[in-house]
Amino acid sequence: MSKTLELLNWRYAAKKMQAGAAVPADKLEVILEAIRLSASSSGLQPYQVLIITDPVIKQQIREVAWNQSQVTDCSHLLVFAAWDNYTTERINMMFDLVNTQRGFKNEGWEAYRQKLLAYYPQRPAEQNFEHAARQAYIGLGSALIAAAEQQVDTTPMEGFEPEHVDKILNLAELGLKSVLLLPLGYREAEGDWLVNLKKVRREQADFIIKR
Amino acid sequence: MSKTLELLNWRYAAKKMQAGAAVPADKLEVILEAIRLSASSSGLQPYQVLIITDPVIKQQIREVAWNQSQVTDCSHLLVFAAWDNYTTERINMMFDLVNTQRGFKNEGWEAYRQKLLAYYPQRPAEQNFEHAARQAYIGLGSALIAAAEQQVDTTPMEGFEPEHVDKILNLAELGLKSVLLLPLGYREAEGDWLVNLKKVRREQADFIIKR
Repeated sequence: MSKTLELLNWRYAAKKMQAGAAVPADKLEVILEAIRLSASSSGLQPYQVLIITDPVIKQQIREVAWNQSQVTDCSHLLVFAAWDNYTTERINMMFDLVNTQRGFKNEGWEAYRQKLLAYYPQRPAEQNFEHAARQAYIGLGSALIAAAEQQVDTTPMEGFEPEHVDKILNLAELGLKSVLLLPLGYREAEGDWLVNLKKVRREQADFIIKR
Repeated sequence: MSKTLELLNWRYAAKKMQAGAAVPADKLEVILEAIRLSASSSGLQPYQVLIITDPVIKQQIREVAWNQSQVTDCSHLLVFAAWDNYTTERINMMFDLVNTQRGFKNEGWEAYRQKLLAYYPQRPAEQNFEHAARQAYIGLGSALIAAAEQQVDTTPMEGFEPEHVDKILNLAELGLKSVLLLPLGYREAEGDWLVNLKKVRREQADFIIKR
């Protein structure tokens, strides 16, 4: 049996978490690293991850997240926030970092930089934001598997008002917009209606098409 | 060391694949299952995965994918295609499946169905498609880890003309739009400019924000 499939079968969206049950630092570190190492389009990593532990901020976010209890009961609340736009500065920052880390300039890579510079910053900000937001979901995919490996429960959430979360966290100042919440913690099985229910997915015949 | 982090460090976007090197059926199966088991918003799984092995179709796609050689050299070309809209039928299909698989109707779940039915089908198709597309990227995140576990190389690609791929695969008939290509195969290290270069990611200090 594949370990990855075991982890995907183990995980579910915890509907109730144990308040006060802390995720240890080494486990948190693995989850954050899994996100940071994730693939992204052109390697731009066009998002950031906020870790919220302040109970006051958690409470403010819960109030604009359909009052979901995991937002305050969780150990760490991750907020995935995507770049609000692709700018010349941001593209150059990542291409420069690649050159610095690899210790040389590559002609093909520089040509690719120019291609992106000629293309992305000219597009509407909203289109660039949507593209950046998608990349954050790759990181979410990694985070869910890494958390399961660490036996940490998660609840991926889109059920919140992003404009309000952006204001609470002053994301506009950072050129970011919230796209996902991910509470990390430990399931409280007794109060969780989902924990014992079967995971339901369409059969391969209704999900996969061969050509 | 976390196995998930090992896998994420092992993988890279293969720039050249060995033509004719086949991914065995059991490894393909793990990758497909990892996608199928992935989380998605409200559990709707609003996308499908096409597996292309026909060399004629691969060639047609390569011609609208910046002539990237992995598209034809790969063993299996996966195409992630998102629902073009959320319809009443699609939402009911997934909620009915959940009831059938779990063997009972749940009041809270039925209330949630009504909430989605009152919300999603009324939104513009483009907004729903964008939302569906994001979910496919969670599946991509799982696929990249599962493939690495199986020591299968991958090249996640957005560099293609989706409208053309949609036409080649008649996706409009299925109510789908292509969002990602994922060639699966084996790296040809000799012709691959990226294989020996350092993976570059921003440091945690530039990626993570604590609050």
